[in-house]
Amino acid sequence: MKIIQLNSRPVGVPQLSDFKMINEDRPKLADGEILLKASYISVDPYMRGRMMDAKSYIEPFELNKALVSGIIAEVVESKLEGFSKGDFVSGMLEWKEYQSSKGEGLFKVDSKGAPLSSYLGVLGMTGLTAYLGLTEIGKPKVGETVVVSGAAGAVGSVVGQIAKIKGCRVVGIAGSDEKVEELKSKYGFDAGINYKTTANMTQAIADACPDGVDVYYDNVGGEISDAVMLNVNRFARVIVCGAISMYNETSIPKGPRVQPILIKNSVLMQGFIVSNYMEKFGQAIPQLAKWLQEGKLISTETIVEGFENAPQAFIDLFEGKNKGKMIVKV
Amino acid sequence: MKIIQLNSRPVGVPQLSDFKMINEDRPKLADGEILLKASYISVDPYMRGRMMDAKSYIEPFELNKALVSGIIAEVVESKLEGFSKGDFVSGMLEWKEYQSSKGEGLFKVDSKGAPLSSYLGVLGMTGLTAYLGLTEIGKPKVGETVVVSGAAGAVGSVVGQIAKIKGCRVVGIAGSDEKVEELKSKYGFDAGINYKTTANMTQAIADACPDGVDVYYDNVGGEISDAVMLNVNRFARVIVCGAISMYNETSIPKGPRVQPILIKNSVLMQGFIVSNYMEKFGQAIPQLAKWLQEGKLISTETIVEGFENAPQAFIDLFEGKNKGKMIVKV
Repeated sequence: MKIIQLNSRPVGVPQLSDFKMINEDRPKLADGEILLKASYISVDPYMRGRMMDAKSYIEPFELNKALVSGIIAEVVESKLEGFSKGDFVSGMLEWKEYQSSKGEGLFKVDSKGAPLSSYLGVLGMTGLTAYLGLTEIGKPKVGETVVVSGAAGAVGSVVGQIAKIKGCRVVGIAGSDEKVEELKSKYGFDAGINYKTTANMTQAIADACPDGVDVYYDNVGGEISDAVMLNVNRFARVIVCGAISMYNETSIPKGPRVQPILIKNSVLMQGFIVSNYMEKFGQAIPQLAKWLQEGKLISTETIVEGFENAPQAFIDLFEGKNKGKMIVKV
Repeated sequence: MKIIQLNSRPVGVPQLSDFKMINEDRPKLADGEILLKASYISVDPYMRGRMMDAKSYIEPFELNKALVSGIIAEVVESKLEGFSKGDFVSGMLEWKEYQSSKGEGLFKVDSKGAPLSSYLGVLGMTGLTAYLGLTEIGKPKVGETVVVSGAAGAVGSVVGQIAKIKGCRVVGIAGSDEKVEELKSKYGFDAGINYKTTANMTQAIADACPDGVDVYYDNVGGEISDAVMLNVNRFARVIVCGAISMYNETSIPKGPRVQPILIKNSVLMQGFIVSNYMEKFGQAIPQLAKWLQEGKLISTETIVEGFENAPQAFIDLFEGKNKGKMIVKV
């Protein structure tokens, strides 16, 4: 069976050579264990941070060990009470075709209630990140303007749809005309901006947000965020969820200081990690599932076929090649 | 009588030529008015922002009109019910030796309960800014580490003392060895750092904060804050109260982007303006007065004599010539 390991710590943009695939025998099961077969693997921008050997909110990946991410797996053999052959589980698992587990940190998913991949997307960390970041920090009020960067991505597309459900004007920033068109036609955003073809982002945001920006859900950081920050209203809330534009930087990038804007407008900026809000998951997932069933929330996934293509799928995230959630089907 | 007006909008560091003093007759009182004689004038760094012709949380000063700041004044004549000759009031008033008022926005101060000047300092906006910023945003817990920049200044010295009352380890950053010594000997800070003589601020903060930084009360911005931000703990709270290091900049200064730190450590940054918390003043002032009476809070003031010296006193703020609250005695 195949295993994908971290071969070297990327410098700048990750390369295929930073990964390596090896073969190993399937694990033998001990009592109290289950054998899992990976079905769907999530690739996420935050994993870039774990590839560096630096202190962060989560331990770095180790060299020459399997990568880890959110995975949906099938129980193919069980010597553990509570798990039966044919069950599907979700959890932070290793990039291995097969792996054993004592069941810790796994939860069962209902393969009939929703497509299995959605438990990595809108009903998984992606949806939770969008929903809890927006509602717990952004606290959008009816009639307010919400700007989302990385708007066509996994989290951004869900953020925008939830902000619409909450009665806001929603403006998305994305990296192609096609994506911008979909923000409006598919997800119901009020306006979209293609940052790659817009010379003056500050003005474009001002034009798209005639009443200013009340909530900014930031997935990208960098110059896009600089432009949004120049348009924030008093008491604006900024959810700092991702900084994909900076993940591949080799030194701390510089930009306009935010402090004068924060003071002038009494702005809140809050770094957001979904795992800080674990106690809210139980309430959030049924809400997301309900919106999904009602058709108020559209789930978009870019599914890449083949376990061996997981590294390329991960690398493609930084080129914005995904629409919605990027998932590898094993 | 003398009036001090804004003569020109400063570019960079304010100059005396940006101010002008003119003479006018004392106002004649109409019914429903009081005549006020200025006793103490507050000069504050935030006024630099009002000297620019730019949208902010408060209207810009107008050219060729009197400046405005917190002033303690004596009622020398009254045609207004509720105010008697000899009363002292506090309010946002004009830089005029005498002025009339309809009483709006004024509140009486007790000249026997505490020194009059303290109503501009520890029992006024200064104390409220320190107390409400620290408690409402910083929410310091016993045993946490609080770092204060501009620590020997009006707000900073009070922040540090309140953080000590709250049971925290308190580290102050100031601009001279004498100030740093006073932080410890006079205000009870646990450690102090002279940023002017410290080559590696990031390391100095790490050394002074062996358990990292949980709360950062930021009065200065700039490179000092960059160094503090590299030492923040998970769930740190940053009160962005002032950015005196940037007030005289003519363009938005650049610095290391904060977003990666905010994400990595789930940090909160909140721009703070004391007037957003007006509903808390009634509870905060008695608390500050109690600590002052109990000797738990020491009020330091730098008193400059002479109405005509107010512009120089204001300019001196940016050189850090004050200890504690800078006040002009008319």
